[in-house]
Amino acid sequence: MITTTTQLLELFHETRKLTEQICKPLEIEDYVVQPIEFVSPPKWHLGHSTWFFEEFILQHYKKDYQLFDEQFAFVFNSYYESVGEKVVRTNRGNLSRPTVKKIYAYRTYVTQALAELLTNSNENLSKIESLVEIGIHHEKQHQELLLTDIKYILGNNPLLPVYQSNFKESKTETFDHQWVNISEGVYEVGKPDDGEFCYDNEKGRHKVYVNDFSISNKLVTNAEYLEFINAGGYQDVLLWHAEAWDWINTENIKAPQYWHVIDGNWHQYTLSGLQPLNLEEPLAHISYYEAFAFSQWKKMRLPTEIEWEICNEKFNWGQRWEWTESAYTPYPNYKKPEGALGEYNGKFMVNQKVLRGGSVATSPNHTRCTYRNFFHPNLRWQFTGIRLAK
Amino acid sequence: MITTTTQLLELFHETRKLTEQICKPLEIEDYVVQPIEFVSPPKWHLGHSTWFFEEFILQHYKKDYQLFDEQFAFVFNSYYESVGEKVVRTNRGNLSRPTVKKIYAYRTYVTQALAELLTNSNENLSKIESLVEIGIHHEKQHQELLLTDIKYILGNNPLLPVYQSNFKESKTETFDHQWVNISEGVYEVGKPDDGEFCYDNEKGRHKVYVNDFSISNKLVTNAEYLEFINAGGYQDVLLWHAEAWDWINTENIKAPQYWHVIDGNWHQYTLSGLQPLNLEEPLAHISYYEAFAFSQWKKMRLPTEIEWEICNEKFNWGQRWEWTESAYTPYPNYKKPEGALGEYNGKFMVNQKVLRGGSVATSPNHTRCTYRNFFHPNLRWQFTGIRLAK
Amino acid sequence: MITTTTQLLELFHETRKLTEQICKPLEIEDYVVQPIEFVSPPKWHLGHSTWFFEEFILQHYKKDYQLFDEQFAFVFNSYYESVGEKVVRTNRGNLSRPTVKKIYAYRTYVTQALAELLTNSNENLSKIESLVEIGIHHEKQHQELLLTDIKYILGNNPLLPVYQSNFKESKTETFDHQWVNISEGVYEVGKPDDGEFCYDNEKGRHKVYVNDFSISNKLVTNAEYLEFINAGGYQDVLLWHAEAWDWINTENIKAPQYWHVIDGNWHQYTLSGLQPLNLEEPLAHISYYEAFAFSQWKKMRLPTEIEWEICNEKFNWGQRWEWTESAYTPYPNYKKPEGALGEYNGKFMVNQKVLRGGSVATSPNHTRCTYRNFFHPNLRWQFTGIRLAK
Amino acid sequence: MITTTTQLLELFHETRKLTEQICKPLEIEDYVVQPIEFVSPPKWHLGHSTWFFEEFILQHYKKDYQLFDEQFAFVFNSYYESVGEKVVRTNRGNLSRPTVKKIYAYRTYVTQALAELLTNSNENLSKIESLVEIGIHHEKQHQELLLTDIKYILGNNPLLPVYQSNFKESKTETFDHQWVNISEGVYEVGKPDDGEFCYDNEKGRHKVYVNDFSISNKLVTNAEYLEFINAGGYQDVLLWHAEAWDWINTENIKAPQYWHVIDGNWHQYTLSGLQPLNLEEPLAHISYYEAFAFSQWKKMRLPTEIEWEICNEKFNWGQRWEWTESAYTPYPNYKKPEGALGEYNGKFMVNQKVLRGGSVATSPNHTRCTYRNFFHPNLRWQFTGIRLAK
Repeated sequence: MITTTTQLLELFHETRKLTEQICKPLEIEDYVVQPIEFVSPPKWHLGHSTWFFEEFILQHYKKDYQLFDEQFAFVFNSYYESVGEKVVRTNRGNLSRPTVKKIYAYRTYVTQALAELLTNSNENLSKIESLVEIGIHHEKQHQELLLTDIKYILGNNPLLPVYQSNFKESKTETFDHQWVNISEGVYEVGKPDDGEFCYDNEKGRHKVYVNDFSISNKLVTNAEYLEFINAGGYQDVLLWHAEAWDWINTENIKAPQYWHVIDGNWHQYTLSGLQPLNLEEPLAHISYYEAFAFSQWKKMRLPTEIEWEICNEKFNWGQRWEWTESAYTPYPNYKKPEGALGEYNGKFMVNQKVLRGGSVATSPNHTRCTYRNFFHPNLRWQFTGIRLAK
Repeated sequence: MITTTTQLLELFHETRKLTEQICKPLEIEDYVVQPIEFVSPPKWHLGHSTWFFEEFILQHYKKDYQLFDEQFAFVFNSYYESVGEKVVRTNRGNLSRPTVKKIYAYRTYVTQALAELLTNSNENLSKIESLVEIGIHHEKQHQELLLTDIKYILGNNPLLPVYQSNFKESKTETFDHQWVNISEGVYEVGKPDDGEFCYDNEKGRHKVYVNDFSISNKLVTNAEYLEFINAGGYQDVLLWHAEAWDWINTENIKAPQYWHVIDGNWHQYTLSGLQPLNLEEPLAHISYYEAFAFSQWKKMRLPTEIEWEICNEKFNWGQRWEWTESAYTPYPNYKKPEGALGEYNGKFMVNQKVLRGGSVATSPNHTRCTYRNFFHPNLRWQFTGIRLAK
Repeated sequence: MITTTTQLLELFHETRKLTEQICKPLEIEDYVVQPIEFVSPPKWHLGHSTWFFEEFILQHYKKDYQLFDEQFAFVFNSYYESVGEKVVRTNRGNLSRPTVKKIYAYRTYVTQALAELLTNSNENLSKIESLVEIGIHHEKQHQELLLTDIKYILGNNPLLPVYQSNFKESKTETFDHQWVNISEGVYEVGKPDDGEFCYDNEKGRHKVYVNDFSISNKLVTNAEYLEFINAGGYQDVLLWHAEAWDWINTENIKAPQYWHVIDGNWHQYTLSGLQPLNLEEPLAHISYYEAFAFSQWKKMRLPTEIEWEICNEKFNWGQRWEWTESAYTPYPNYKKPEGALGEYNGKFMVNQKVLRGGSVATSPNHTRCTYRNFFHPNLRWQFTGIRLAK
Repeated sequence: MITTTTQLLELFHETRKLTEQICKPLEIEDYVVQPIEFVSPPKWHLGHSTWFFEEFILQHYKKDYQLFDEQFAFVFNSYYESVGEKVVRTNRGNLSRPTVKKIYAYRTYVTQALAELLTNSNENLSKIESLVEIGIHHEKQHQELLLTDIKYILGNNPLLPVYQSNFKESKTETFDHQWVNISEGVYEVGKPDDGEFCYDNEKGRHKVYVNDFSISNKLVTNAEYLEFINAGGYQDVLLWHAEAWDWINTENIKAPQYWHVIDGNWHQYTLSGLQPLNLEEPLAHISYYEAFAFSQWKKMRLPTEIEWEICNEKFNWGQRWEWTESAYTPYPNYKKPEGALGEYNGKFMVNQKVLRGGSVATSPNHTRCTYRNFFHPNLRWQFTGIRLAK
């Protein structure tokens, strides 16, 4: 928990630095492209996470603050409809300017201004600190997106370039498989009000009634998923949701993202390059649709987010974002923050699925057992995986 | 509850007849068109509800049964992927043949064959009876769709023809407004196992924990919704989900479906024709997106389906399908039926919202307090409405 | 040539009657559907060809003329942007009303009113007569469209219904094949100013310089086209225009429209029903793209419209609209008529190809050797064919 | 005319160098993006014009030639369907690799290899020389595309960056306006067979018959076009082709590309940055649709390509590609070259319009009076203009 301004400032600097370290292995060209709508160019992430501090803090609280460039608000706003116009999302990859160099200068400018603001006395210090804390967590979220967007950018290039030759995407779970059994009863979920940072969507600790259930202590492996493929899982309509079936047929989906058959053998593209499929490792890059179909085939199911949370201490998590059966809807008594920051989470609470845990791409100290991640059910460029329940 | 074969047969005949009565006011041309993907031509409903009996019962259980026409399975299958090919949904309105006359002949043929099957002794009688019961409920569902599809077909014709001049779409709730208050605790929901017919998706009576809440004893009226419009509700981005905001802007949505401004005054198209907007009547034909935005504007919320169910006896329901905040996901221990009928409900359990209650278009004895209706959040051609909670 | 009002009136009545005779074999349902954008529902043709007389003649020249229905202008306008709003083209098949019966009443009403107008003395008689002549030719064009649209409607129905069991789509050209050779020099083309009716686009008789060429006295047969298919014509990219190659691949085109392989044998759907492919008959229902690719494969070419016209008397024509290599552009000194009728032809003079001749579906006395028909190069629901040149 | 290998080699080196000079002002990021399908990233042009020499010459004629990189054929093929798979056109802007640096290395490698091939004796020298000549002209075409694509990339960036501050897009035509009058008769057009390089599509000098016509000695200016805008030209449906009308309304076109109203005054983006609209200069960046509508409004027309060619010496041309009324179809006796190079021109001869002349972006010695340029009628990112005829 952050308790002093100094600690906050330190965390701020660390976070700003880490974002740039993630981009170190990139060529200038890699910063620019947007091969698909939901992926943003790395340079956009660099600018947007910086703009956030300028938009929500510096221009309100720093006396005589000069915007680095007046047009950047237009270029780097993401989805905050209430703070003005923005570049259409699909258009991000069409912008060659501002250059990467200019964006790094923008970062330095804003980082310094914010450090000054935090260092000098200010009547709004506690409000500012709480906004800086959000800004830091916001940037950590973009660090994970940076990694997964970079993977998408390189992994969809026909040359399949390496990002970092020693990047490790997973470690094998070598312990024995067991079912964790939980008894029916009333439990509590949601973030307790303990002063630690959390998002609005996980707040409101509350009681829930849960039936008996069992949950696996291990993630589904590549080997297990391969069995599903080989058993014709992608061809058996009865395993799939109706819109999932349309999706796999329209998009011609027959395996997880980044899986390739080369000379008859399965390979996977990873951030350390193309590799033979590692059978023992936890499966990654599947959609909710596929996670659900796989669970049907196993005659089991996915856990709800509630089930996951109440027994999360009984298993290791953090390698993969784990799809749950739960739709992303508000907790009882959910309150959206006032103003533009109210757009952070609440407005996405429809047609998305909750994922729990965290992944190898999640930034240090970013996730926690009450964290509610969410994506549309067809997306799979995150490090998503499966933990079965029954 | 149906207890004898005779009762079942009677209900079967009543149901078949009612379907045809609904179509009585139509011109032949009205049976044919499909102005939008989610609306089916009336003649398709007539054929499809008939094909259901042929496909799932007659051809399996009636000795020497001759299909009325071998190609009808192709023409009238809806979404049962596992029983063979079908006309693409968007293509239903392109088929002028079979003619309406032929489809009525098909109905008579199948009705007679099924009546015979039920009348004569048969070793599979109890299995057959249970399938007939599903077929009857299936046809009742299509009766409601018939009415709402007819409304769409006529209501989107520039001539705005009348369906039935005395059709009453709602009655004013004249009683006083009150908040029903429910106390925190453990409750039970889901259909008890009492032998009465219900769908798979409502089965599995189970305990839930519910927090204190209040729910309105009245539906939102046209007058209240008009206030929201006049207050600029459709222009205030902070009230809307992100994808709802895209939807209202892309589709240019500014009022409920069937509302028109004519010479400066609001009118609504109804099954009895175009009428001045009746302010006192319950609102109809809004999407979940609009229901949610309205609730935000009122600084309240929509109830969950659980909340709705545990106190449904405290208010009148049945005029409007009431949008809930709940996503359509399986109940604990949900089991999909084996085979093609397993496609009935389970495969839609993603990206849809639950509606509770029933509407003026719902067939007699079709709905009940545990009934889980579901639609995509943007759809509004059903008689959908709003009941607020807080 | 029409020389008297009586002759004109006679031709008017004949034409109105023929339109209705074409529709005789239809069921009510067949009048309603629009399976693809470029096909219009038969009831729309019936109404539109009637509206033309009302819009351009009756309401201007008939004293105290009452519109049959004020909304019909909106429903039956086709593309005359300058005379007011209209139903979006793709929406024509969504309109169940006005009913077929009502449209026939509309026809009778307008036919009578127009007959009266022509019969009674009127100071604008010669202007009116010339407009009636256009209206008659306009309706003849819609007669051809009616037949081809009906073929599309029935031929894309999975039940493949028969239109008229004795309809003959072609006759075999039994005479010997010969090349008609034309010598280089100056020729004249375009409709001479002889008082006979013609469209604006063929006016302006003018000189052209033509090189030596040869043109076939026979149309390409189904047998010849089958050779092209069997030789892999649809798979050889070098035979096709770039956008044609995209088109055949996107649309999965592998044969002329209405050709089907059934149990290993080629069949064709005709207005008299499904039949084994008649090898000797002239090919029909191919796009310009296919006509061009076929000619490339034969190491020949399509004639220009100029070449076709200057030697048209040397061969029989009239069974198929013959694709030419000529783009549809204005003749020298082309003048668009003033006002809304100027929209008749001129505004289509881009991105279309000229077809010459006429077809089995063309109405009697409608075409002539200077007639310039035109369609987009991908369309093939007309009776289109190929005559080779070199 | 090139007569010696030395001259050819010199031209080759000059051309290769000029391509790179055009890219000098670019930032790395500018090389990468593809804001719209018809624009290619500059790095793609650099690679593609290099690949052309490798694909069609080096790998066939240079002994033991090693491809620079085997995957580049896949990455840099444009539209030669017959030489193998290629990156989908819309995907070019999604490729961050190969890097710009690598592509420059590729250029150097191929330039050297080709220089060697030309220098050393080779039995196929004359065949090679003729292919090198095509390759040089091909690269010159891409030089023009480079400039116009760069303009599009920068001109659609919200920051509107300058390409080169002294780039001059046009010079005012200060001489007096006159009509050039040509008398009816037989003329000759097409490239004479004089040994000079030309494309296949302009070959075949042939006679044409032309009617009396007049053609303007000046291009239409910005001032004249502004009159058309101010007179409501974009709102008058009768001036437009049907598909042009759809286009301006769907795309919301109300002015030439790169025209902006800023604080009530017209500006134009140019390669030297944003500037007040220069009224005296020749109009640029309009589609054929707009050129046609403008000519209609002036009660004149566009010249045919034939008319343009026979009197081209009577006026100055070369500032703007001038839209003609002529569709791009083959000349009499047009012969497509054998093999993949046959894909160069012939396969585009449908649905495009011919432009004559050349523009400020055209490379030195690239165009000539018989040159047939062609584009789809809606495109306007080239320096296109209008010369009226009557």
